[in-house]
Amino acid sequence: MVLLRTHVGDVIRESRKDQGRTLRDVSASARVSLGYLSEVERGEKEASSELLAAICEALELPLSRLFAEVSTRYASLEHESLATPVALPVRPRVEAQAPAA
Amino acid sequence: MVLLRTHVGDVIRESRKDQGRTLRDVSASARVSLGYLSEVERGEKEASSELLAAICEALELPLSRLFAEVSTRYASLEHESLATPVALPVRPRVEAQAPAA
Repeated sequence: MVLLRTHVGDVIRESRKDQGRTLRDVSASARVSLGYLSEVERGEKEASSELLAAICEALELPLSRLFAEVSTRYASLEHESLATPVALPVRPRVEAQAPAA
Repeated sequence: MVLLRTHVGDVIRESRKDQGRTLRDVSASARVSLGYLSEVERGEKEASSELLAAICEALELPLSRLFAEVSTRYASLEHESLATPVALPVRPRVEAQAPAA
């Protein structure tokens, strides 16, 4: 089970790295502390809705795109779990016993 | 600016109502307090990633679907804001002065 904050942190970090920006730059632009942003990126802290909006604005990452990406990541996990073989409750096969010699 | 917890609460409440289920039923199934679920639905409380997963499981609402819906709602708002007329910085028109009689 992957937690929401893990996916959100991953997408935010990837967006920041794609832009070649530092934690310091984005945290200053979003007016959040560098430590807070770092914890959010690592999925260690739940971002409040307000601070998540500020971080996404600093990254020019529309919230629609962030959650489309989160949705896609969940969907691929759900697809995987659907594809996992399920053990059926069948009785163990009883081996035919060889007649006593 | 619509906050994430507002959209999440709306989608959860709509999903519960569509299923004709009560706050009591879903909160018991998700093992969260009825008051907590009610606050989450009204967008008054940030659900932790863990409790959000429990609530969605109780509703049989895949997280991929919840966030696809959240994404769609944000996209429609972003579309609206793009469609809002923007005031251009043009100089006010100087009326031609009538010649003095």
